[in-house]
Amino acid sequence: MKIESNLKKHKANPTNKTTYRNFPMVPKVIFGSGSFSQLGDILLPMRKNSEAPFIFMVDDFFENQQFLAQVPLMFNDEVIFISAEEEPKTAQVDALVAQIREKYSELPSGIIGIGGGTLLDLAKAVSILLNNKGLAKDYQGWDLVNKPALYHVGIPTISGTGAEVSRTTVLLGPEKKLGINSDFTPFDQVLLDPDFSKTVPKDQWFYTGMDCFIHCVESLTGTYLNAFSQSYGEKAMELCQEVFLGDIPVEDSRDKLMMASWHGGMSIAYSQVGVAHAMSYGLSYLLGIKHGIGNCLVFQHLEEFYPKGVALFNKMMDKHNIQLPKGVCADLTQNDFDVMVNISLGLEPLWENALGKDWKTIMTPERLQVLYEKI
Amino acid sequence: MKIESNLKKHKANPTNKTTYRNFPMVPKVIFGSGSFSQLGDILLPMRKNSEAPFIFMVDDFFENQQFLAQVPLMFNDEVIFISAEEEPKTAQVDALVAQIREKYSELPSGIIGIGGGTLLDLAKAVSILLNNKGLAKDYQGWDLVNKPALYHVGIPTISGTGAEVSRTTVLLGPEKKLGINSDFTPFDQVLLDPDFSKTVPKDQWFYTGMDCFIHCVESLTGTYLNAFSQSYGEKAMELCQEVFLGDIPVEDSRDKLMMASWHGGMSIAYSQVGVAHAMSYGLSYLLGIKHGIGNCLVFQHLEEFYPKGVALFNKMMDKHNIQLPKGVCADLTQNDFDVMVNISLGLEPLWENALGKDWKTIMTPERLQVLYEKI
Repeated sequence: MKIESNLKKHKANPTNKTTYRNFPMVPKVIFGSGSFSQLGDILLPMRKNSEAPFIFMVDDFFENQQFLAQVPLMFNDEVIFISAEEEPKTAQVDALVAQIREKYSELPSGIIGIGGGTLLDLAKAVSILLNNKGLAKDYQGWDLVNKPALYHVGIPTISGTGAEVSRTTVLLGPEKKLGINSDFTPFDQVLLDPDFSKTVPKDQWFYTGMDCFIHCVESLTGTYLNAFSQSYGEKAMELCQEVFLGDIPVEDSRDKLMMASWHGGMSIAYSQVGVAHAMSYGLSYLLGIKHGIGNCLVFQHLEEFYPKGVALFNKMMDKHNIQLPKGVCADLTQNDFDVMVNISLGLEPLWENALGKDWKTIMTPERLQVLYEKI
Repeated sequence: MKIESNLKKHKANPTNKTTYRNFPMVPKVIFGSGSFSQLGDILLPMRKNSEAPFIFMVDDFFENQQFLAQVPLMFNDEVIFISAEEEPKTAQVDALVAQIREKYSELPSGIIGIGGGTLLDLAKAVSILLNNKGLAKDYQGWDLVNKPALYHVGIPTISGTGAEVSRTTVLLGPEKKLGINSDFTPFDQVLLDPDFSKTVPKDQWFYTGMDCFIHCVESLTGTYLNAFSQSYGEKAMELCQEVFLGDIPVEDSRDKLMMASWHGGMSIAYSQVGVAHAMSYGLSYLLGIKHGIGNCLVFQHLEEFYPKGVALFNKMMDKHNIQLPKGVCADLTQNDFDVMVNISLGLEPLWENALGKDWKTIMTPERLQVLYEKI
């Protein structure tokens, strides 16, 4: 079933000139249940020498001997366990980069991110900053990175974010929540092993899956859509509906949600996200609300923009008995709302994709605040 | 609509061990009507120096001033027009490589293939052989290429072959029709400009589109299928049905068939083709029949293997008033049949994908000859 697929004849770039983005794809991907056991073979030819370690940045959910025994460590390789309780931050990236630079006499052979969107985005950002001067916040924006990142590998352990294929790494900075969008951001290698998602708690599974679902809705209804993006978005949307509304074996469901995340990420990569993401960024900047649940908190109130998408979302919420927190914005001050509104309205390409070139006349600060007040 | 999607729990490699292929994807892609005008900007940073030309290998269908005026030539760049009347040959690759080596003091900056499967496969093979010793026939098979190919760009002008994303380049050699399958085969850059397909003759449009349709049927029903391959195959199949059985505007149809080819190619790249391709290779080896029409000639007689696929194929043939030649194999000798049967049965991964590990007990030389005799 396709929803809201208004293919408008706009081009896949924010300026609407007839220039198209030359889109970087992940050049190597391995897919399969148990494929994590092949990681050592994949990394071996990429080792520069015995002094240049691989740094594994891993969600601390996996901090146990059973997992460590499977990591293909050699020489001075290091595993850094990192909490994904909070959204990734520019200062956190800078600290990791400084720590790695200080500890090793030469640059690592590469960075391996293992986890959800937080860990994948941290791994991308660290690999960029290890090869580029300055601080992470200097690169938040579009196409500000000058030199290729260090070799970096992404291994998602939860499905939905699309971080495994995207050309961005979204970071909370001192002044904004914004991605480092560049051709050097995508991973050099992705390993898709659906077995990792066996241990994901149900709420997190749902929220992160909805990140993918919302990517598809925002991409398929956006003004930047083209046939490339549409074909990926439609497939990801179908897979989301199989997973969240269908009745399929749990093993197939894991496989399919992993592919939904992949295709959904491809779809937004060549178009853009929309209202839900623009608002969710404000929410997590001010309140530190994580991206997956933040999207859901926002999306439930967007029926005027995405009527069919919100109807499907409500069905999925019902089917899986998900209860979202209420009154999240109840006690905020006017200053708080101003901060969220400013962060959100600063994401111009997202609004232009969602509402067209005249978006500023449609989405005023006042209207946006009313939406935030509902959450 | 999904057809024959028997997801069996086999792994995506011919040996059925739990090792998975680490699949190389095209690392850069640009999509859009008119995007050919951006080729110059894309090539500029890839120029090694003014003595290292770009060699444009172009289907001689485009041998005219209007086309030449659009090719972004600089310095000593060269356009070589090549006929796609015949399937690409190993000796043709060797001759092109010798010609380029002789003419230029250093290796080219890169090879740009512009055309259908023939030109794309020639461009891939020439870029491999310019960086690897020996003859093209030495590399026909799986993973025999040792060194990376020269930078190479693929620009399909007709949709369906999947050559723009595949890790093979299929060549007629002195002893076999077989691909150079390797991680170095895929293009470094693909440019997808649907405008090129405006000028494709209707029969050719249909036959080449059916190459994609048949890829999907063979991938989705094969024993090598996994969820990765399945998601691409299903999307390509949907797009084929929109294009060949639906009622959509011609501009959308061009866009969608281009994406069908892309996704269909991705699907077989991580699984394998089947009976139609195995038989079609024999047909073109012996009779020089081109791949697109060869697939159709074979596929019409494969209802016992692909009942739903053949039924859809027949509907598409009817809708577009396609008349296939008859009696193609009527005058062949027993020796001719032996040659075709041997070529075809030599493609073991294709048969194993189609019929499972015990394929040799299912597809005997006698049974295969009976199928060829129907054509």
